[in-house]
Amino acid sequence: MEYHVKKAEGKLGILVPGLGAVATTFIAGVEAIRKGFAQPVGSLTQMGNIRLGKRTENRYPLIKDFVPLANLNDIVFGGWDVYEDNVYEAAVNAKVLEPGLLFAIKPELEAIKPMKAVFDHAYAKNLVATNVKDAATKTELAEALVNDMLNFKEENGCDRLVVVWCGSTEVYTEPSEVHATIENFEEGLRNNDPRISPSMIYAYAAIKSGIPFANGAPNLTVDIPALVELAKIKGVAISGKDFKTGQTLMKTILAPGLQARALGINGWFSSNILGNRDGLVLDDPDNFKTKEVSKLGVLEDILRPEDNPELYGDIYHKVRINYYPPHGDNKESWDNIDIFGWLGYKMQIKINFLCRDSILAAPIVLDLALFTDLAQRAGMTGIQEWLSFYYKSPQTAEGLRPEHDIFKQLIKLQNTLRHMMGEDLITHLGLDYYQDLVEAIQ
Amino acid sequence: MEYHVKKAEGKLGILVPGLGAVATTFIAGVEAIRKGFAQPVGSLTQMGNIRLGKRTENRYPLIKDFVPLANLNDIVFGGWDVYEDNVYEAAVNAKVLEPGLLFAIKPELEAIKPMKAVFDHAYAKNLVATNVKDAATKTELAEALVNDMLNFKEENGCDRLVVVWCGSTEVYTEPSEVHATIENFEEGLRNNDPRISPSMIYAYAAIKSGIPFANGAPNLTVDIPALVELAKIKGVAISGKDFKTGQTLMKTILAPGLQARALGINGWFSSNILGNRDGLVLDDPDNFKTKEVSKLGVLEDILRPEDNPELYGDIYHKVRINYYPPHGDNKESWDNIDIFGWLGYKMQIKINFLCRDSILAAPIVLDLALFTDLAQRAGMTGIQEWLSFYYKSPQTAEGLRPEHDIFKQLIKLQNTLRHMMGEDLITHLGLDYYQDLVEAIQ
Amino acid sequence: MEYHVKKAEGKLGILVPGLGAVATTFIAGVEAIRKGFAQPVGSLTQMGNIRLGKRTENRYPLIKDFVPLANLNDIVFGGWDVYEDNVYEAAVNAKVLEPGLLFAIKPELEAIKPMKAVFDHAYAKNLVATNVKDAATKTELAEALVNDMLNFKEENGCDRLVVVWCGSTEVYTEPSEVHATIENFEEGLRNNDPRISPSMIYAYAAIKSGIPFANGAPNLTVDIPALVELAKIKGVAISGKDFKTGQTLMKTILAPGLQARALGINGWFSSNILGNRDGLVLDDPDNFKTKEVSKLGVLEDILRPEDNPELYGDIYHKVRINYYPPHGDNKESWDNIDIFGWLGYKMQIKINFLCRDSILAAPIVLDLALFTDLAQRAGMTGIQEWLSFYYKSPQTAEGLRPEHDIFKQLIKLQNTLRHMMGEDLITHLGLDYYQDLVEAIQ
Amino acid sequence: MEYHVKKAEGKLGILVPGLGAVATTFIAGVEAIRKGFAQPVGSLTQMGNIRLGKRTENRYPLIKDFVPLANLNDIVFGGWDVYEDNVYEAAVNAKVLEPGLLFAIKPELEAIKPMKAVFDHAYAKNLVATNVKDAATKTELAEALVNDMLNFKEENGCDRLVVVWCGSTEVYTEPSEVHATIENFEEGLRNNDPRISPSMIYAYAAIKSGIPFANGAPNLTVDIPALVELAKIKGVAISGKDFKTGQTLMKTILAPGLQARALGINGWFSSNILGNRDGLVLDDPDNFKTKEVSKLGVLEDILRPEDNPELYGDIYHKVRINYYPPHGDNKESWDNIDIFGWLGYKMQIKINFLCRDSILAAPIVLDLALFTDLAQRAGMTGIQEWLSFYYKSPQTAEGLRPEHDIFKQLIKLQNTLRHMMGEDLITHLGLDYYQDLVEAIQ
Repeated sequence: MEYHVKKAEGKLGILVPGLGAVATTFIAGVEAIRKGFAQPVGSLTQMGNIRLGKRTENRYPLIKDFVPLANLNDIVFGGWDVYEDNVYEAAVNAKVLEPGLLFAIKPELEAIKPMKAVFDHAYAKNLVATNVKDAATKTELAEALVNDMLNFKEENGCDRLVVVWCGSTEVYTEPSEVHATIENFEEGLRNNDPRISPSMIYAYAAIKSGIPFANGAPNLTVDIPALVELAKIKGVAISGKDFKTGQTLMKTILAPGLQARALGINGWFSSNILGNRDGLVLDDPDNFKTKEVSKLGVLEDILRPEDNPELYGDIYHKVRINYYPPHGDNKESWDNIDIFGWLGYKMQIKINFLCRDSILAAPIVLDLALFTDLAQRAGMTGIQEWLSFYYKSPQTAEGLRPEHDIFKQLIKLQNTLRHMMGEDLITHLGLDYYQDLVEAIQ
Repeated sequence: MEYHVKKAEGKLGILVPGLGAVATTFIAGVEAIRKGFAQPVGSLTQMGNIRLGKRTENRYPLIKDFVPLANLNDIVFGGWDVYEDNVYEAAVNAKVLEPGLLFAIKPELEAIKPMKAVFDHAYAKNLVATNVKDAATKTELAEALVNDMLNFKEENGCDRLVVVWCGSTEVYTEPSEVHATIENFEEGLRNNDPRISPSMIYAYAAIKSGIPFANGAPNLTVDIPALVELAKIKGVAISGKDFKTGQTLMKTILAPGLQARALGINGWFSSNILGNRDGLVLDDPDNFKTKEVSKLGVLEDILRPEDNPELYGDIYHKVRINYYPPHGDNKESWDNIDIFGWLGYKMQIKINFLCRDSILAAPIVLDLALFTDLAQRAGMTGIQEWLSFYYKSPQTAEGLRPEHDIFKQLIKLQNTLRHMMGEDLITHLGLDYYQDLVEAIQ
Repeated sequence: MEYHVKKAEGKLGILVPGLGAVATTFIAGVEAIRKGFAQPVGSLTQMGNIRLGKRTENRYPLIKDFVPLANLNDIVFGGWDVYEDNVYEAAVNAKVLEPGLLFAIKPELEAIKPMKAVFDHAYAKNLVATNVKDAATKTELAEALVNDMLNFKEENGCDRLVVVWCGSTEVYTEPSEVHATIENFEEGLRNNDPRISPSMIYAYAAIKSGIPFANGAPNLTVDIPALVELAKIKGVAISGKDFKTGQTLMKTILAPGLQARALGINGWFSSNILGNRDGLVLDDPDNFKTKEVSKLGVLEDILRPEDNPELYGDIYHKVRINYYPPHGDNKESWDNIDIFGWLGYKMQIKINFLCRDSILAAPIVLDLALFTDLAQRAGMTGIQEWLSFYYKSPQTAEGLRPEHDIFKQLIKLQNTLRHMMGEDLITHLGLDYYQDLVEAIQ
Repeated sequence: MEYHVKKAEGKLGILVPGLGAVATTFIAGVEAIRKGFAQPVGSLTQMGNIRLGKRTENRYPLIKDFVPLANLNDIVFGGWDVYEDNVYEAAVNAKVLEPGLLFAIKPELEAIKPMKAVFDHAYAKNLVATNVKDAATKTELAEALVNDMLNFKEENGCDRLVVVWCGSTEVYTEPSEVHATIENFEEGLRNNDPRISPSMIYAYAAIKSGIPFANGAPNLTVDIPALVELAKIKGVAISGKDFKTGQTLMKTILAPGLQARALGINGWFSSNILGNRDGLVLDDPDNFKTKEVSKLGVLEDILRPEDNPELYGDIYHKVRINYYPPHGDNKESWDNIDIFGWLGYKMQIKINFLCRDSILAAPIVLDLALFTDLAQRAGMTGIQEWLSFYYKSPQTAEGLRPEHDIFKQLIKLQNTLRHMMGEDLITHLGLDYYQDLVEAIQ
């Protein structure tokens, strides 16, 4: 298996369903970076290094100098939203970025106006949508989206497109027979099956058009057999779900660390306070359930209690999200972790993360867009497990347990890049550095 | 390069210079575990699993079922201390373990009496030693230690010995010419060179006797060219320095996590409060300096500011240790980390770790003793870089940068074990799970 | 108005409905203190001082040396519970006090067996009661309680009795016409009116028997016109509601401090994790509502937003209680307070209180019992507002706003004691210390 | 003793030695408030209420509507500094207030240029001064300051002046014979006695000119017998020392709260990180000692260990200030408080205060200036103990213990104002609200 990666020539269009805090922070950020006002901190594709070869070779190039990614100057932005606000207005309302910064790129942002969204009130009860498509069937809605995508490509002279879902969390649903095969799914579109959510229609439209799709929310969306199958047939790269920011990011950093040392855990209490639109939507218990499922699975998959019941067999894990307007987008988390060590003696870790939700999510949107486009050019189609690194709840092949440990996810990502470019994989064995010692005593 | 690991037959003697809180918690703990009173939580050799083969094989044996380690029931304990207290008395004074637990194993602990220590007041000004060896030269002191070791081996019918330094932190010193070669070093022993510290004399005596040595304090000790060379000649496994517990453990978990995401750091303030003997010794600025050097290097080696100056080129890193008697051995750390993300926006992480110093250190003593003995039986002599996992300031071959990232250290350790036993190394690439997908579209 | 306080002669019986964690910690504690095993820390009546006269007089006697309180050796304990466990068994189950301590006073604790409780499942859905009185009407239940009290008094040779409610929080109810007058209330007892809760029946029985009553839970109980009127007629001291411990204690310390400096507040988020029976009961939303009302009122009454809308007119105040078994009785709170200062600049305060619920509540039970008995002997009948100090939601005369500021509550308590004993009230004016200076310049 | 308070007519000049972060935040803030850009939050004189009469009267006027204070529009600013920067430049450098706000009041701030300072390098080793007075003796320096003051008064048409010290903390000194009498002090000025610090020369010049003086730093300054005596003779109001902000503010809020409940304390560890000029100066151990003495006394005076040795007789109290540039003026404190309750059971409180030093100090400067001017007009001369509320280390009459409890300080302040205006003092007794109850049973 060898990859020949096509060069990134021409323009790349990034289309975003949901032009809220995350998407506008992403778009405004890229504009600001292109003008030299700021740095793309938090983005591996722009600022991350990768080690190549042996430690003594001292090769640590930037990732963007190592693999052929689309250049920031070749990106064009578009999207859909349930409100009419253009990206400038939406960014001002989101109150994430300083007014001064937004003002400096106002013309560019104002030019990006949302296309009418596919919306279903049953999937986001706390929102009142005003900029939505009207159609008799979900099939027609999907066709309208396909048209949006093709028109955008043509109008903007794009060589390639990528779609990244940045919309709100939809209410919790489980996969059912309508999601099982392409036939069922297309039948459901025609019959307006209520189990087909808006985000699924976007994903279907994209894949159908040969456009790769990444899902930043915990909704099922592209993680259903029907769309996985369609992606295979169409040769399209897909991935999901739920951008890994804030508290879950910390959890997938810390839990592997405790496990590395065989320290036991008997309780993990996670509380969040946030006051943005995301917080408002999650105040509805049905939407929170989708999020909760995504957040709770993390520990179990990392710690594997079935293999180590004495250490991890009895963890009381609770996650709470509290809508708290005084903090706006400045989401803050507080974690209390009850651990035990040698002879069962108890210890506690408390973590208070004063983070900024959209600031952490924006570079993920960029990386996913660029890496997904890279995968597509490399001929790597279907589920991109190597992008698990960016997700709270990584989509995997059926029967395969997701990998949540952020460090294993990073090695997987980096070794995939090395593999793609014909470099040696890294195992950190490193015994060869000591070969002389070994020989000396033989 | 292939290893044939000798079986672990007969008794293993573990000799500890410094029978304080850490060593007595280790010894009492192993006794309690042997009696079935408690579990060796925190010990990878006893409770850790290792993945073998592909994910779908589902092979996650315990490490102790995978590599041939000495059995806990085959261990015999001994040691030296500057006070006459037997291990029971010392453990009671340390106030780490519950009196009830200690009482239940009192006879076993009382039987372990400290041999007279090699002590030099210039290296630990806050201690008043009463149980020390008296000799005209450092050469004689070394010979006395060699005799102690050989007598212990014979009296206890041991097949093999390991020495693990658990003594206090010595005052800061830099390597000089007396440490450069074996000749200089032995000359220095004869001349009572003040640059040769007590811990170096222990290390010399052990290596000279063919006994492997691990160093749990930040002192130079075995990390000098003279003793590295001697270890090569004698075919002895050595490693160091400074058990990685508490705050530094957290730091080497968290820093790689932030770096993984290309998040910038501009400040890291670490404060500690502790009230045990360790805290008292570190109240002396000269001893603290040794510790500080060991603690400060961590971030730089992980973050590699020279490769990524925008993100890590200007970190203000400060570490404070405060003697605070109300907490006793319950060391508590508070870290404030100032990070920045997308476009330079600032965020903060605060970590409060209510830990127990000796509870975290004791299983490290056990693992180092057992893995060092394993390495020795496998013929892996000289510096054991694969044990970096356990150290704040890992000893490496000259010219090689130490690896502080705990996750790379863990992979190195695990891949070393896999390599030793002829199993495939793990790269986390995992593209083969998706081969059918790939083929499907070709 | 002058008081002649009767001496505390003979025995004082303290009767407690609800022999759970709080009550058993209180009773076991007093037994341990009487035996000299421990100190009554947290009890103002036992360990608090009071300043008398001018600062230069240096008179700071212990409160118990200043006012005539019942002696700890003259106390006899009794109570009711929905389970049959004696106080020793209940204390062991509560897991608050060390087993060794409880064992040392086992005979005394075992001797205290709960009388059958008045229980109504509708008021505490998460509990399964097994030791309850059976009667056709609530009138009969009240009569049975009156008999219990009089029998207890006679059997134990008590001079006086006090009842302190330590039972669980009942579901939320609002005062209605059945609570408006004695006639209605007694009619309701006869008709088994569902709006009369178990705690009201206890309070009625006590007052009817001339026994003072203090209410440690947030239920209405004695805070209804019918029982206030009955207390007046019978000449009985009453007070409530809800022992002020943990987070609310901190809130009534901190809020007055911020207000003292005219610092503004725009958000106060309070989260609690606890794993005892109290936490289990409060996991039911109806019971939590009673608690929430009690907890939320605190800030408004202290900060008086109507008098200072710029500083306190727009506070987002949220309180969460999370059942978290790993912590048991070691309730832990985390508060985030968003404040603003000069020119509106924002600041944050985070408080993490690792407390022990019953350890904080037990001395309150003792103080309320002794001070209530004192008030009764002093002829101070009806609502004891000067005991507001001990309550989350102090009961006051109709039309009077409760005082929550703990420092005003303390001054009120201390000045009441001074007043009772004929000492000068303290105003902290203190200009007289500087009279000479003033004169010097006239 | 009755006061007739003169009205506040004409202009009030506020002169500030030390135009650093605190002073410029104060001056810029008042300018912004005068223009209606912001509110004087944190200032009792501007935004605080005071209760008058009985609770049922519902009289809670603003303090500024109750006592005759100078109006903000009648204030003129001036000052001295060791650097030539005008107030606009100094405010920009201090990085406390937003550039946009400062820009909007640039003309007013630029017009305030520092007069040459009295400076002595021995008292502030970390500063390099460039704008200093040159004179042969300290007497001449004092005369130059007197001239500065009188000129300022005349040039600005002021009716009255007040001086508030906002300079850096000077190195630690103890009172000696040169500070004992006016004669000695004036002799010392003539002889350039090194024990007379710059701040003392400012205080002397002010008092000599009949101008009241308030001291915001922990230096002795006006807290020496010589200057107290001079203030008496000249009929001048004085007060000090050390503005109470941040951590000590929290400490004097929390410690009285714990004491109110008779909770014991065995340890209080206070750590601070800050990165402003204050932090730089305090990095010198001699300057830190002055601060440390000021900060450590607080607990002892509040808790009175001699009256309550079981609860407060053995507290380990430690205060650390760490220079940490990443935080700038955003000082942050972390406190760990080890308390114990009923039967000695241990609990912990952790407080993390993300504060802003100058934002908390600026309104104190305003209040002290206005209240000191009020006192002067009321004929209240000498030490103003009622202003203890604002100080970490309140200056008192000889032999009188300072009051640190912020709630007693507040009552003292409020009762002083009530007394001054002929209102009843408040004792919070409040038994009269319940008189009918009492009568009912008599």
